Amino acid sequence: MANITKKVSWSSRADESGAVGEGTPLLNGSEQRRLSRQDSLAGRPKEIPHNEKLLSLKYESLDYDNIENQLFLEEERRMSHMGFRCLEISRWVVCGLIGFLTGLIACFIDIVVEELAGFKYQVVKENIEKFTEVGGLSISLLLWAVLNSAIVMVGAIIVAFFEPIAAGSGIPQIKCYLNGIKIPRVVRLKTLLVKVFGVICSVVGGLAVGKEGPMIHSGAVVAAGVSQGRSTSLKRDFKIFEYFRRDTEKRDFVSAGAAAGVSAAFGAPVGGVLFSLEEGASFWNQMLTWRIFFASMISTFTLNFFLSVYHQKPGDLSNPGLINFGRFQGDSVAYNLYEIPLFIAMGAIGGLLGALFNVLNYWLTIFRIRYVHRPCLQMMEAMLVAAVTATVSFTMIYFSNDCQPLGPEHTEEYPLQLFCADGEYNSMATAFFNTPERSVRSLFHNQPGTYNPLTLGLFTLTYFFLACWTYGLAVSAGVFIPSLLIGAAWGRLCGILLASITSTSSIWADPGKYALIGAAAQLGGIVRMTLSLTVIMVEATGNVTYGLPIMLVLMTAKIVGDYFVEGLYDIHIKLQSVPFLHWEAPATSHWLTAREVMSSPVTCLNRIEKVGKIVDTLSNTSTNHNGFPVVVQVSGNDEPAKLCGLILRSQLIVLLKHKVFVELARSRLTQRKLQLKDFRDAYPRFPPIQSIHVSQDERECMMDLTEFMNPTPYTVPQDTSLPRVFKLFRALGLRHLVVVDDENRVIGLVTRKDLARYHLGKHGLEELQLAQT
Amino acid sequence: MANITKKVSWSSRADESGAVGEGTPLLNGSEQRRLSRQDSLAGRPKEIPHNEKLLSLKYESLDYDNIENQLFLEEERRMSHMGFRCLEISRWVVCGLIGFLTGLIACFIDIVVEELAGFKYQVVKENIEKFTEVGGLSISLLLWAVLNSAIVMVGAIIVAFFEPIAAGSGIPQIKCYLNGIKIPRVVRLKTLLVKVFGVICSVVGGLAVGKEGPMIHSGAVVAAGVSQGRSTSLKRDFKIFEYFRRDTEKRDFVSAGAAAGVSAAFGAPVGGVLFSLEEGASFWNQMLTWRIFFASMISTFTLNFFLSVYHQKPGDLSNPGLINFGRFQGDSVAYNLYEIPLFIAMGAIGGLLGALFNVLNYWLTIFRIRYVHRPCLQMMEAMLVAAVTATVSFTMIYFSNDCQPLGPEHTEEYPLQLFCADGEYNSMATAFFNTPERSVRSLFHNQPGTYNPLTLGLFTLTYFFLACWTYGLAVSAGVFIPSLLIGAAWGRLCGILLASITSTSSIWADPGKYALIGAAAQLGGIVRMTLSLTVIMVEATGNVTYGLPIMLVLMTAKIVGDYFVEGLYDIHIKLQSVPFLHWEAPATSHWLTAREVMSSPVTCLNRIEKVGKIVDTLSNTSTNHNGFPVVVQVSGNDEPAKLCGLILRSQLIVLLKHKVFVELARSRLTQRKLQLKDFRDAYPRFPPIQSIHVSQDERECMMDLTEFMNPTPYTVPQDTSLPRVFKLFRALGLRHLVVVDDENRVIGLVTRKDLARYHLGKHGLEELQLAQT
Repeated sequence: MANITKKVSWSSRADESGAVGEGTPLLNGSEQRRLSRQDSLAGRPKEIPHNEKLLSLKYESLDYDNIENQLFLEEERRMSHMGFRCLEISRWVVCGLIGFLTGLIACFIDIVVEELAGFKYQVVKENIEKFTEVGGLSISLLLWAVLNSAIVMVGAIIVAFFEPIAAGSGIPQIKCYLNGIKIPRVVRLKTLLVKVFGVICSVVGGLAVGKEGPMIHSGAVVAAGVSQGRSTSLKRDFKIFEYFRRDTEKRDFVSAGAAAGVSAAFGAPVGGVLFSLEEGASFWNQMLTWRIFFASMISTFTLNFFLSVYHQKPGDLSNPGLINFGRFQGDSVAYNLYEIPLFIAMGAIGGLLGALFNVLNYWLTIFRIRYVHRPCLQMMEAMLVAAVTATVSFTMIYFSNDCQPLGPEHTEEYPLQLFCADGEYNSMATAFFNTPERSVRSLFHNQPGTYNPLTLGLFTLTYFFLACWTYGLAVSAGVFIPSLLIGAAWGRLCGILLASITSTSSIWADPGKYALIGAAAQLGGIVRMTLSLTVIMVEATGNVTYGLPIMLVLMTAKIVGDYFVEGLYDIHIKLQSVPFLHWEAPATSHWLTAREVMSSPVTCLNRIEKVGKIVDTLSNTSTNHNGFPVVVQVSGNDEPAKLCGLILRSQLIVLLKHKVFVELARSRLTQRKLQLKDFRDAYPRFPPIQSIHVSQDERECMMDLTEFMNPTPYTVPQDTSLPRVFKLFRALGLRHLVVVDDENRVIGLVTRKDLARYHLGKHGLEELQLAQT
Repeated sequence: MANITKKVSWSSRADESGAVGEGTPLLNGSEQRRLSRQDSLAGRPKEIPHNEKLLSLKYESLDYDNIENQLFLEEERRMSHMGFRCLEISRWVVCGLIGFLTGLIACFIDIVVEELAGFKYQVVKENIEKFTEVGGLSISLLLWAVLNSAIVMVGAIIVAFFEPIAAGSGIPQIKCYLNGIKIPRVVRLKTLLVKVFGVICSVVGGLAVGKEGPMIHSGAVVAAGVSQGRSTSLKRDFKIFEYFRRDTEKRDFVSAGAAAGVSAAFGAPVGGVLFSLEEGASFWNQMLTWRIFFASMISTFTLNFFLSVYHQKPGDLSNPGLINFGRFQGDSVAYNLYEIPLFIAMGAIGGLLGALFNVLNYWLTIFRIRYVHRPCLQMMEAMLVAAVTATVSFTMIYFSNDCQPLGPEHTEEYPLQLFCADGEYNSMATAFFNTPERSVRSLFHNQPGTYNPLTLGLFTLTYFFLACWTYGLAVSAGVFIPSLLIGAAWGRLCGILLASITSTSSIWADPGKYALIGAAAQLGGIVRMTLSLTVIMVEATGNVTYGLPIMLVLMTAKIVGDYFVEGLYDIHIKLQSVPFLHWEAPATSHWLTAREVMSSPVTCLNRIEKVGKIVDTLSNTSTNHNGFPVVVQVSGNDEPAKLCGLILRSQLIVLLKHKVFVELARSRLTQRKLQLKDFRDAYPRFPPIQSIHVSQDERECMMDLTEFMNPTPYTVPQDTSLPRVFKLFRALGLRHLVVVDDENRVIGLVTRKDLARYHLGKHGLEELQLAQT
């Protein structure tokens, strides 16, 4: 996400932001001080492009409110009951397709990673075995490091040079999209391609990353593409699903895609639905949720089916998703009442370690934003990390003397004998010389005694810093698996220590249980997800009984972690100054009313307006809004006019492009009437106003907006409290909310940025600065 | 639910309803005909008290919109950040308590049923064994029938005479409550007691019922009681949780209670959360959902813990909820791709059978409403059903000659030898001579060959009609388990038939899998729940792999069933003429606007109003609304006045009771200012206006409503389309929505009944008649 700031959108309100800040005198004292300090900086916001105390004006909102203008209503009224049913069916078909394609992609990633990683580890293993005997293991190290760096380089190049938005896990971006923020290029086909090949390179390159986060992003891109029935990158329009070409419908499908991604990644269809709802839903709709669930199910099913074919067990659909934690079954993993406090303590440790991880990564990200923003530097950093990871792994394995007997069932994929006796293998290598998914599984399920405590401790320590350094590189990679791995390692360590303290009781015997709890604690401490994460963990382990402990652990980790710092995704969202809306307004914001929150004055348009004024309004860069209240002047005087509708910038541009002027309509009676289709064809990339030529004559024409404006925009009185405004705005997913006085005259406009500005800081309510970073 | 109509609420609008119906000319032709036919009936609505084409005016709505008047805002503003945090903590505590108590109740029911049923079956078994040898089994039959009737009689008496609302499963009532409708006495302590003891009697009495539905109702009652910190039945006010004494908070806790109930009943915490959301959520809130999940978890946990103690395995928390489907594990239950079409076909069968069940039950319910509405008749019917159930069961067992060898592990709880050889038992008796839960489990898990097809066929047939007859009796009982049992029986039958057709393949070998699919199909066909039911089934079977088939089956069953008739709960809700709001407005309702939908004219109050007028307004039975727009007259003329607020009937009554008159405030300066606490103490049972004495002098006083009214009610312009009005209303859980013209003058009021009137019938949009049934 580090590079999305390069693009410039056409919204800007830098000149207004100071005034808005000063126009809000209701905040408490400490806030005032902070504000005035920031005001002095307002003149040079370019210097602090990624400040979490800023709110960027360059992000646009999605509009989940249907524009119920006359055209729309006419179309809806023309449509028969049968028509609505067909639409409903095509929604299901689209969701099925989304699930199917997402599953296919997950399958592709999984198989390619498995094959390539297998090949790589085989080569390195043979090399190590060769040089263990003859000496000169430094050549093996070199081979390993160079191999990793080369593979990671490919991944970093395609990300850094071709599509920087594909960096990272993609979850922050999808969170933002579902929250209602348009992040440029986040759901494009190109992003998907870069993401898929990038994640393959990262995982095969041996970085401390997972392939699960990117699946969620991939699912969302698939959904956005399929549901629109066309691809702008490929310049193909299949002329299907045209009805779905608006924000409301597209958002719903992207939710389904994200859910399908989670479902494919973790084999957790219910978890996927909950993830989408947790991040995105404003209004819960039963049919929508049911469709999302369908997409998730199809996704897991597709993945399972193709993987079962790949593993030569066709038709065996009992495999879960990309990551397979293995089943926790049997009596050995049952827990008892008195273990609950222990679990909670582990949750607290997870919260602490998670907060540490996040703080370190926060500093690192700030550093990267300042000094490592050129693509070639980013590429070199990624290669460096890959080389260091290989070196550190090698060193750890080399100096470890934790030899374990090789079991008869050969659970280890690539057992490294190294300096161990025959029939034994190096236990440190199980953790390092393996794909992270396999390492997690072996930490969960290997027999007690497979790892010695020192190995686990050292592994935790090194992997923690490696993972922290890795997240935020310009490669496509997720943080779920590294977090789980760190947690599983120290969790297992806890289990072993507990077993050694209380050697009598057999209940402590299985450290795998503690590995699971540790993994949950660490992941919860880093990402701070709640309900959906619990369900994902439960589904991925296939054991419902662990529900309560996992929930308690996640809750503790969240409470402890939140005390220090926010979740990793939220930190990255904040560093991008994205106007993210939370579920509720800050608790102590009843002091504020719509009057203080709104932007004012608002540029209004008349119902029948001169083309010249419209063009000027749209061209004026200080008119930053994308929606304009349409008003009727009551009398000639200066008092605000009465609200009669709302029209969007995008609509005006389409109208200008088609020259829908009153005069022309009169002269050319045969002219085709503008239809909803024209707006849909232009969606979502409406041309900028600069590309539309309007002659001097045409500037004198008039435009009648009656047919195109939304005649019934939602409004609030100016005395409405902020929580109330917030609730309306959030529940309906609005983009513009008109503030009116008691005679229905427009006096302001509330947008996402006006609401996202307020947040609860350490010293009470704080206000973020708006800036055009 | 059959008897809740006995209570009369104070809302009535019978005289207006005709006019409103005629004032809506936009419906299509067929609709007009139906309407006019109904108009002729409007004069005598009393004759058809339970007509699904009527909408009762006697139900009040809950108000999920916070009344943000000055008192409220002052309180919120006084509250510190710490105060909000304490509130949040107490919400968690309440949810924990709800879960704990719900789990305890579930545990109590389970243990008592197990003990009593065990005792009963033991007695009957010994009796049968005695008389099998000496002849004269009719005495055994008599004993069984009399025992059952007597036990059921007790259950029917407490329900029919003491608390009729406790009849049935309670799920329709909870659905209504979560939808926002106040059903009288549904969340009282007395209802809970009757429900608990009633369900014990029904299950022990051998009726074709389950104890799971009532658990959901019990959880909701617990939640309503605990969260309010007082009990009106016990006349105790613990002076805690006073902040939660309003509809918004109470609804949230009741959601948590319902979820805890589901969780305890099926061992499905996630399913419980989804159930609550599916039925109730208007706006998804992350923290709320998380709390609901917490309550669910605690509930399952408590139940498991106490049951583990009861079963002498203390601390073993791996038991799921009340119903235990047993784990589906191992290779024998894996399914293959080509079985999916078979599952879908079974789903269609389930849909058909479910529709048949619902139609039969619909006719039966109509019959009951007409002829069996006296408590003693209801009691006798319940006894009759109990006797018939015993007789039919006995006859079936008697004439069955399906003898099976008694396994070494004794999976049968009460094996009846009857006329079988030694070491064998009667297979029909496993199904009939058992609690329904155990029967379901044996159908799922018994070895292939345990049942012969004829036994299963006969059992399906008889149990189908018995269950259909039983649902709707004046006993506390659920329909989940009987549905599952019917489905499991014919599902197993399908499995056996398939295995006999394709005798080669081993995949068909296990009929338990088909029993599970059949159970899902039948249950889905009857209740038509979707997402939550899938998750409940998955959690109850403890096997995630069955997710996709179960989902497909439920979907098919719903589609097929919906083609014929609605779900069972919806039928019962409709028969009560409850103004239930679905998720979205009917698809073809874009024709209608707020102007046609709203009630008009509206009684408005002035900001400073004469006490006499307020008393008259409240006393006037034709003024049926519970909210009154507060207006400011612009000039003396007749034109509608400008909206400045909204005040509720309940608030006015509290004001009148405390005599908050302008004149008195002036004369008695020391008078205590009315606080939010006074409103909370009166919640939720505000006294009727008749109980408040206002003297003639006082009638001349003035009341200043400014401080108490909600100054920023949500409004819509009169041209807003019905779907748009609906969305706003539903998403925010409103009770009153003021319709204004373009100068902010009140011209109408939209309430729940105005929106619930429109529904999509066979011939397009239909309008229900409003009546004061």
